[in-house]
Amino acid sequence: MSGVATNMRVKLPAICLVLQIILIILFGVLVEYDHDTDAKLWHKGNQSDYENDFYYRYPSFQDVHVMIFVGFGFLMTFLQRYGFSSVGFNFLIAAFSLQWATLMQGIFHGFHGGKIHIGVESMINADFCTGAVLISFGAVLGKTSPVQLLVMAMFEVTLFAINEYILLSLLGARDAGGSMTIHTFGAYFGLVVTRVLYRPNLDKSKKRNSSVYHSDLFAMIGTLFLWMFWPSFNSAVTAHGDDQHRTAMNTYYSLASCTLATFGMSALTAHDGKLDMVHIQNAALAGGVAIGTAGEMMLTPFGSMIVGFLAGIISVLGFKYLSPFLESKLKIQDTCGVHNLHGMPGILGAIVGAVTAAAATAEIYGGGMKDVFPYVASQARDSFKQGGLQAISLLVTLGMALVGGLIVGFILKLPIYGSPSDTICYEDSIYWEVPGEEETHDDQLTTVRAEEVEKLNS
Amino acid sequence: MSGVATNMRVKLPAICLVLQIILIILFGVLVEYDHDTDAKLWHKGNQSDYENDFYYRYPSFQDVHVMIFVGFGFLMTFLQRYGFSSVGFNFLIAAFSLQWATLMQGIFHGFHGGKIHIGVESMINADFCTGAVLISFGAVLGKTSPVQLLVMAMFEVTLFAINEYILLSLLGARDAGGSMTIHTFGAYFGLVVTRVLYRPNLDKSKKRNSSVYHSDLFAMIGTLFLWMFWPSFNSAVTAHGDDQHRTAMNTYYSLASCTLATFGMSALTAHDGKLDMVHIQNAALAGGVAIGTAGEMMLTPFGSMIVGFLAGIISVLGFKYLSPFLESKLKIQDTCGVHNLHGMPGILGAIVGAVTAAAATAEIYGGGMKDVFPYVASQARDSFKQGGLQAISLLVTLGMALVGGLIVGFILKLPIYGSPSDTICYEDSIYWEVPGEEETHDDQLTTVRAEEVEKLNS
Amino acid sequence: MSGVATNMRVKLPAICLVLQIILIILFGVLVEYDHDTDAKLWHKGNQSDYENDFYYRYPSFQDVHVMIFVGFGFLMTFLQRYGFSSVGFNFLIAAFSLQWATLMQGIFHGFHGGKIHIGVESMINADFCTGAVLISFGAVLGKTSPVQLLVMAMFEVTLFAINEYILLSLLGARDAGGSMTIHTFGAYFGLVVTRVLYRPNLDKSKKRNSSVYHSDLFAMIGTLFLWMFWPSFNSAVTAHGDDQHRTAMNTYYSLASCTLATFGMSALTAHDGKLDMVHIQNAALAGGVAIGTAGEMMLTPFGSMIVGFLAGIISVLGFKYLSPFLESKLKIQDTCGVHNLHGMPGILGAIVGAVTAAAATAEIYGGGMKDVFPYVASQARDSFKQGGLQAISLLVTLGMALVGGLIVGFILKLPIYGSPSDTICYEDSIYWEVPGEEETHDDQLTTVRAEEVEKLNS
Repeated sequence: MSGVATNMRVKLPAICLVLQIILIILFGVLVEYDHDTDAKLWHKGNQSDYENDFYYRYPSFQDVHVMIFVGFGFLMTFLQRYGFSSVGFNFLIAAFSLQWATLMQGIFHGFHGGKIHIGVESMINADFCTGAVLISFGAVLGKTSPVQLLVMAMFEVTLFAINEYILLSLLGARDAGGSMTIHTFGAYFGLVVTRVLYRPNLDKSKKRNSSVYHSDLFAMIGTLFLWMFWPSFNSAVTAHGDDQHRTAMNTYYSLASCTLATFGMSALTAHDGKLDMVHIQNAALAGGVAIGTAGEMMLTPFGSMIVGFLAGIISVLGFKYLSPFLESKLKIQDTCGVHNLHGMPGILGAIVGAVTAAAATAEIYGGGMKDVFPYVASQARDSFKQGGLQAISLLVTLGMALVGGLIVGFILKLPIYGSPSDTICYEDSIYWEVPGEEETHDDQLTTVRAEEVEKLNS
Repeated sequence: MSGVATNMRVKLPAICLVLQIILIILFGVLVEYDHDTDAKLWHKGNQSDYENDFYYRYPSFQDVHVMIFVGFGFLMTFLQRYGFSSVGFNFLIAAFSLQWATLMQGIFHGFHGGKIHIGVESMINADFCTGAVLISFGAVLGKTSPVQLLVMAMFEVTLFAINEYILLSLLGARDAGGSMTIHTFGAYFGLVVTRVLYRPNLDKSKKRNSSVYHSDLFAMIGTLFLWMFWPSFNSAVTAHGDDQHRTAMNTYYSLASCTLATFGMSALTAHDGKLDMVHIQNAALAGGVAIGTAGEMMLTPFGSMIVGFLAGIISVLGFKYLSPFLESKLKIQDTCGVHNLHGMPGILGAIVGAVTAAAATAEIYGGGMKDVFPYVASQARDSFKQGGLQAISLLVTLGMALVGGLIVGFILKLPIYGSPSDTICYEDSIYWEVPGEEETHDDQLTTVRAEEVEKLNS
Repeated sequence: MSGVATNMRVKLPAICLVLQIILIILFGVLVEYDHDTDAKLWHKGNQSDYENDFYYRYPSFQDVHVMIFVGFGFLMTFLQRYGFSSVGFNFLIAAFSLQWATLMQGIFHGFHGGKIHIGVESMINADFCTGAVLISFGAVLGKTSPVQLLVMAMFEVTLFAINEYILLSLLGARDAGGSMTIHTFGAYFGLVVTRVLYRPNLDKSKKRNSSVYHSDLFAMIGTLFLWMFWPSFNSAVTAHGDDQHRTAMNTYYSLASCTLATFGMSALTAHDGKLDMVHIQNAALAGGVAIGTAGEMMLTPFGSMIVGFLAGIISVLGFKYLSPFLESKLKIQDTCGVHNLHGMPGILGAIVGAVTAAAATAEIYGGGMKDVFPYVASQARDSFKQGGLQAISLLVTLGMALVGGLIVGFILKLPIYGSPSDTICYEDSIYWEVPGEEETHDDQLTTVRAEEVEKLNS
């Protein structure tokens, strides 16, 4: 079986080990401790230990970290025969992306005298960038090889860093929770990639492209950790003090509101008035996505709940009506429905952010204006212009995602990555040693499956 | 099948969307950022950022949040065919309750000039109130429709806020971890509700009212997250400094002690000297409940361990001997055994709190008296009176729970909520689209189950 | 069946309840609140609340706590029929060990006027010590009774505290993340114990000594929580400020690098170029072990990534080639492969720590030297001597583990603990009431399994 196309004996070790060695060398050349992590620099000043950024941000970082590895990883275990790959490839590409992102983000907006200075804030930003890659992973889940995913991650991280640089540094846009930079970018990038990788005969793998009872429970682990820690996600890099506090609270209420909207809409639209697990697992999170940009602003809990409510409605409707249309008409095979969870709610979030920014007044923000809108506080621009630049940022993000996804999609279409054939997608045993289901049936099941795979794969 | 009583097509969307819209309107009218979340107010003073309450309480909040959504949610997945509903309805009623609780608690004890001021502490309190609702949910698990649960939550949150107001504001009782306000109230409220909703023919659903191997492992996820984060729960709203620190530590040792008692008692009482998963999943947590009131006091680790030890013993004995008695003689069908985990340990906790309060001296508490017993520190009352008021608080709580549960039970008995018939309790497929168990048997199993449900439900 | 050797009716309750009562008495006699948890002492000074050690360490403590109970517990659920025991016995022996460790560590290095003073730092240290016991548990998993495990824990905690005292207090070694004290000690202690408890006919239980599809997913929950929170583990007791910050970051990059090495090596060495879940579940964590000693030092992210890279490679090679050799030639039956995850990477970590310490200069550490190497800062020794003492500490640890494991192994060999016979290892139903797999097959399966157990056990 060593001649089979999906065999990873050479390709996967080669890319993993080579990439890691390159990363190590680049870190050796480019990366340094920042002021708060360096023994000498920190002790030069007269800071109190509690002023170290670690204590402001590390708890948020850990929550974000859980979202990236357990949240995204388990959310995708809903597929009945793709749990190892969902959790495992999520683990692999996240571990790569966070290192690569440290370099790319550092080069574009963290360079100090030829060196990249890193600390807890850069770790959070690296995890954020990783989040965008994992969103795109959701769109192509089950149809790609791990080598292909690593190549995608390499390009996507780079484009993410460029887009982030344009938005935050050049345009001076605000996007603390990443409605634009993470969700919109990750979703549309992934959707274009999956469009380019369109598989006309994917219905031959249809029976595995669904959940079983237990896999849906595993997926709920992912959903809940994403839902619970989203307030930490959106507030992780906002300014110290009231900003972190307010962002977390706005997100909390947006998500709660979104959850009721999701349950309501699911029962309204689903078959026979029954709830659909896909909606609960995904749409209930849209409130976190849609509050990503405006969460740090003085949106009020009232405003946050409206945003969450709309996001939940849009997301369920997307799963119910838009996804089948995208698949049949536009040939976009979006395995996890990232368009409904990240795409549309991301755009909603960008718009809400632009409007909220345009409405900002000194009366409402007082001395806090400098933390939320520094350019407005310094009178370099007015609120209306800030709002306009937020809107332009959305367009830039969409452009970057679409063009970037198109190019990367064609790179990923090359027949060299060992991706599975249409008949054997959504199947762990392509890339993993898979045990049988049950002690007593072990031998039989394993044999059957192995034969099946052999046949389909040859 | 659209005429079936349990069909949620109209009822569930109606209640979810209407409730959420009402919540949004009330938040718009009544709710404001508090000092620590408002951009203008926070920047008026000269506070350092690290003094923002966010940094004192947000890590605890997140732990509490995990307990509410993953802890309670997965603890109840032990039922073999009710995992979607356990996690899903837990999610739904928690998302509703925390919003409603913000308003009810705010009206009763957070009103400032006609407005409710909110921040991380109110978020924790809202989650706490939600905890009580989820305890009651445990008593009626498997026998109620989501609409019924939302109605229960609406009333229970209101009564919770009134009871909490009487205890903490009028009587000046201390109950940081909620032995009385959360556990005793939630348990006895739920027990009375399930008594009123008594189902004489529930044994027709008996075969589904049990676990399978994997469902018990899912439940252990819930157990462990509750157990690990209980120190954060009990300390989440205690005073800054030594109080939070001491409360967390007392809870840690109480739980450890309780766990050994639980394993010992389980092997002692269970069939053939084997351990019973029900005990491990539940009784090992009783130490957290029973230390809820006294945890912030100078109980010492020694005292905490005694409390945990007794709680574990009581709880296992309750599961083994009392629950069957309650079901057969008093017609209380307590699905999760909340009487053993929350009811009796809650009462124990209230008594321990009263005794510990009565024993408080200036010698022991020193300058810390004002944080733990402000009325004693200000000499408005002596320790003995504080202890007496703690005891009265327990009685008030029991009275509120019993009377409230009775009234709400009868409201929930109305045949309008779409609750399942006795033959089809503990079954997800009433309210959820449920996939088959295994790829290869999909078609067969789904068909069989659908037919069965159809038959029983008609 | 009451006469069966593995019956726990008397033994387990006796040891659990007696041990817990002894612990309670000893806590009553010996343990006191420390300065930061005592109401009177804390309020005597003029500290600000944010200076309480709780705020520096409690978030890290909670992460460590999750690693101990969910991380270790679920990592071991990979066995198809041993999930209850993996999670349950992990829970039991951890709850015992953390109490016993509080006393043992307190006696050896926390005594103040005849009393042990405790707070969040001692809680972390108690959890650390528990970690070593759980590592040893991994070596003997499936072949030991809970009584035997408690006896092992009792002795191992004591020896751990002695070894830790020698290393940290007498030799002045640094080992913040416990490469030596926790991982090397726990692994080699457990390996010697499992060697002494060698079972020549264990292949009769071979069919249960493997995973099934879902059990591997449960195990990934353990893996990921260990992986995500390892930065908190290594930094939990390092000095406030830059030290905690730097340690967490070094660990983060070591683990990321290790993960790519693990995936690469797994595909390179495993059958047919497919990935092996055992490697992903375990070897990807070796980077956290190997950075345990040097993590707090100025190792740089570059150095950390090299360490993680090597650890991943060593660990996969160990699983692939060394474990079978150890089992067949040295008669070491290491169920979880702790030698590959904790043993060899622990030694690597000790060596890296010694070398990094020897290379420390005032130029690099500046004023931070006193936090990382207090003896070097005070000129009581030079860096080279510090490095030498680090190396000696490794040898001491290995000696303590080997001799201690040998003695304790023979104590555990006594035929009084109710351990299972060779034919019925890795089987939950020996010690647990186990439900059937599936509603429809319940009666049949349970009957079959009960008969099988009866037969094998008699």
